[in-house]
Amino acid sequence: MIALEAALSDWAAVVGSGNVITHAPSLRAAETATFATAHQIPAVVRPATREEVQECLRIANRYKTPLYPISSGRNWGYGSRVPASDGCVLLDLGRMNRILDFSEELGYVTVEPGVTQAQLYDFLQQRGSRLWMDSTGASPHCSLIGNAVERGFGHTPYGDHFAHACGLEVVLPDGQVVETGLARFPSAKAAPVYRWGLGPSLDGLFSQSNFGIVTRMTLWLMPAPEYFQAYYFRTPSPDGLAALIDALRPLRLDGTIRSASHIANDYKVLSALQQYPWQEAQGQTPLRGPLMERFRRQLKIGAWNGSGALYGTRTQVQEARRLLRRALKGKAGALEFLDDRKLQLASRFARLYEHLTGWNLTRMLAVLKPVYGLMQGIPTDHPLFSTYWRKRSTPPEAMDPDRDGCGLMWCSPMAPNDGGHARQVTSLATELVLGHGFEPAISLTAITERSLACIISLTYDREVPGEDERAMVCYHDLLESLAANGYHSYRLSIGSMSAMGRPDAYHRLLQNIKKTLDPNGILSPGRYIPG
Amino acid sequence: MIALEAALSDWAAVVGSGNVITHAPSLRAAETATFATAHQIPAVVRPATREEVQECLRIANRYKTPLYPISSGRNWGYGSRVPASDGCVLLDLGRMNRILDFSEELGYVTVEPGVTQAQLYDFLQQRGSRLWMDSTGASPHCSLIGNAVERGFGHTPYGDHFAHACGLEVVLPDGQVVETGLARFPSAKAAPVYRWGLGPSLDGLFSQSNFGIVTRMTLWLMPAPEYFQAYYFRTPSPDGLAALIDALRPLRLDGTIRSASHIANDYKVLSALQQYPWQEAQGQTPLRGPLMERFRRQLKIGAWNGSGALYGTRTQVQEARRLLRRALKGKAGALEFLDDRKLQLASRFARLYEHLTGWNLTRMLAVLKPVYGLMQGIPTDHPLFSTYWRKRSTPPEAMDPDRDGCGLMWCSPMAPNDGGHARQVTSLATELVLGHGFEPAISLTAITERSLACIISLTYDREVPGEDERAMVCYHDLLESLAANGYHSYRLSIGSMSAMGRPDAYHRLLQNIKKTLDPNGILSPGRYIPG
Repeated sequence: MIALEAALSDWAAVVGSGNVITHAPSLRAAETATFATAHQIPAVVRPATREEVQECLRIANRYKTPLYPISSGRNWGYGSRVPASDGCVLLDLGRMNRILDFSEELGYVTVEPGVTQAQLYDFLQQRGSRLWMDSTGASPHCSLIGNAVERGFGHTPYGDHFAHACGLEVVLPDGQVVETGLARFPSAKAAPVYRWGLGPSLDGLFSQSNFGIVTRMTLWLMPAPEYFQAYYFRTPSPDGLAALIDALRPLRLDGTIRSASHIANDYKVLSALQQYPWQEAQGQTPLRGPLMERFRRQLKIGAWNGSGALYGTRTQVQEARRLLRRALKGKAGALEFLDDRKLQLASRFARLYEHLTGWNLTRMLAVLKPVYGLMQGIPTDHPLFSTYWRKRSTPPEAMDPDRDGCGLMWCSPMAPNDGGHARQVTSLATELVLGHGFEPAISLTAITERSLACIISLTYDREVPGEDERAMVCYHDLLESLAANGYHSYRLSIGSMSAMGRPDAYHRLLQNIKKTLDPNGILSPGRYIPG
Repeated sequence: MIALEAALSDWAAVVGSGNVITHAPSLRAAETATFATAHQIPAVVRPATREEVQECLRIANRYKTPLYPISSGRNWGYGSRVPASDGCVLLDLGRMNRILDFSEELGYVTVEPGVTQAQLYDFLQQRGSRLWMDSTGASPHCSLIGNAVERGFGHTPYGDHFAHACGLEVVLPDGQVVETGLARFPSAKAAPVYRWGLGPSLDGLFSQSNFGIVTRMTLWLMPAPEYFQAYYFRTPSPDGLAALIDALRPLRLDGTIRSASHIANDYKVLSALQQYPWQEAQGQTPLRGPLMERFRRQLKIGAWNGSGALYGTRTQVQEARRLLRRALKGKAGALEFLDDRKLQLASRFARLYEHLTGWNLTRMLAVLKPVYGLMQGIPTDHPLFSTYWRKRSTPPEAMDPDRDGCGLMWCSPMAPNDGGHARQVTSLATELVLGHGFEPAISLTAITERSLACIISLTYDREVPGEDERAMVCYHDLLESLAANGYHSYRLSIGSMSAMGRPDAYHRLLQNIKKTLDPNGILSPGRYIPG
């Protein structure tokens, strides 16, 4: 601990003592995630510039005190702010929140790690920009870079975040700085627009890794389309999923559907509409069988519920709509289209609309609107509501799942964009999660033309004794069963890094690169790279 | 040389003595590129399997004899088969030519390095597949993997080859094997469809590098559209380029144009139509001024000539056509659309069509047809014709620029997809190349939504004494002037690896990774990674 004291004093000299936090309640809060964690955080250091980050790393090397960078620390469901190993000092990059470059014509913005989704959204609004960002459903206060380097995704045509980013500035563990792609050349004109650069392309090396700290990134932004229309569909049959996936795939492959379209099961939709029906279920968990069917019927929720959007000129959207109708014919009921005008009308005449169409619009609108907005890249904190699913009290105005003891673990296997695989991965997860006494809230997102990200949310109440342990057992069972069946995660939580696999040549390659870049092992030990 | 003798004997034991070539004329041929090179090749070794590649690398380490892998060796304009440093044994992967996996539904194919464009095309034709590949203009006998790892490009929506590939199998310099993305997990279902994998994404590390030998790769294939229509346009004014680029960009950004559209200058088009007009130019070079203008008028060549294609349903293409017409109005003359039916008719009634439209179709069709095919991913060797531009004899039936003393160097700066940048990079190149006495044949390809690959071909006759030297001086002047103005290449020739830049942190990072992976420096020394 003498080394730590010395390091803290040196860090304070760099970032100012007000930006070295050792206040116990703050540290305990930072050690709290949406599931049980044991790793302790001795301090939080908050640099304001890239130069300070460099200096902080040099100090960490000097005293061999590990640092763990976070951007906004909202890695909910995967570990929040908690480091992947014990005793790491948090390097909180939240103060580095400048928007450094922007081009309306070429559609890009260059940001620091502290820039949040809400901040970029406001920036674009204030300029009257015709560009749309892509937003995750996690929170308006999520870091753009934090999500992109974790390879998170949203719902517009730019949903695969890391695929729409380039020109990283990275501080290596030894404090040196590199820029990736053409950005490594001074004043390279194509640096913000061309990903690969010259020579080996290094961007990928700094995503889901502990090889460096990304202190700048260029994100591409899509031009707002002339016309936007969302679509929603559902199927009452749990067996209807495979046909839906197979019907949508050709449209995703041929570019008719350009966005990351989304299919969610009944549990996922129900948990967006309301909290656990403790009364109806007479206090029993998990929710299943006839009671779940009753909710489906009452709320007109399908076994599977799809959403997505069409972007283009009116004619382009009209043609896409025709193709979508044709593809889903006989496979989905209740294919509905929604645009700004219809949404306005629907909000105004919800009751009338309900009467005319038989669609319970009032309640659905509360869920539809945020999803509708997400497909235009508008950040929302509405999906946070569902993390309170099993809580006995209603969510507060300012939701904070870490603070409020919301249990949430995300398991996120990748599958081919294929009906058979979709059926297999979801059946396996559904059965297993119910068997452990939890509700399997599942969504499938075609984040690329050929792949489905399947997100299984384990939601529980951390305040119920024993639930943390039961949920963790369920989570690991799920992760392992899925992997054993060939469905590996696209992303890991801090408690599941062992899913990086058994020691092999690949392992050794990662370890060798790590040793070369970070001989003292001071940067995010245990994060993705096997120690 | 004793080490080499021993290594050759060990390699022969692995691949069979018939696959270790030391026959002098073969080696001299392999040392011959489309420009002056000095590097000698002591032998060619031809493994047939990945296991043999591993064993060859182990032997290379044992005797410290460097290996330089080639796939098809048709890296024309950048060095053909010639290694980036002297004394490397060629590791010719041409015998590894199996197609290992294929999915019609998910649109992918998994290949070995020896699989050529023609081979994949035939494979798809024979199965009656509804999938299209993307082809470069280089040659039907180019390796798919060779081009993709060099980050080459073609002309369909899948034009950026490396962006449409995943799941690499790589033999590391020490002979160990890793697979990238999810392919590293045994039987991962999403391995051929999802790029990023889990943990750091390593694909980029093995492109334009000497960190490993790619022995397998999955390439994505696009579904053939219901309807295909090519478009061609031109502007008579050299100053018209910027407006064209700015008019097309919004359509590329919003997905109306999904393919890598192409704009070529007059020299580029003329050299596709005919060889150098020695007679009309009275033996003088370079071709310029009034004579060049006469050719433009006579052959109805624009100062800038665009081509691209629209893919979709008939309605989608029709709408794209409307948007394209609107965008180019007043900016391009002679916007022409061509589909299969019109092309057939035009071929049949070329003279009549010419009479009716005033468009010199007969001659143009010879150039248009291969370009039309390329936009459908059909390999062609037609572009090779232009490498004979300055030759005094007509090209042979089986063209081989290396053998036939065709001088060709490609300089390939990247620019933002922006009119001002397009003008700057092309003006600079035009003036400089003419000043050196060569014709600046230039094309600009929007290989992504936001970037232009500007390809400047220096074409000359290697049989003219002194031309090799003069061309090389011009090439380096060009490379340096472009870089000084912020236009850095997307790819380098074996003689220009110094353009990787001056020693800095980025340099050191690459060197450190190289030292870690290849302590004996036996894999492609000098290739992209500074020594």
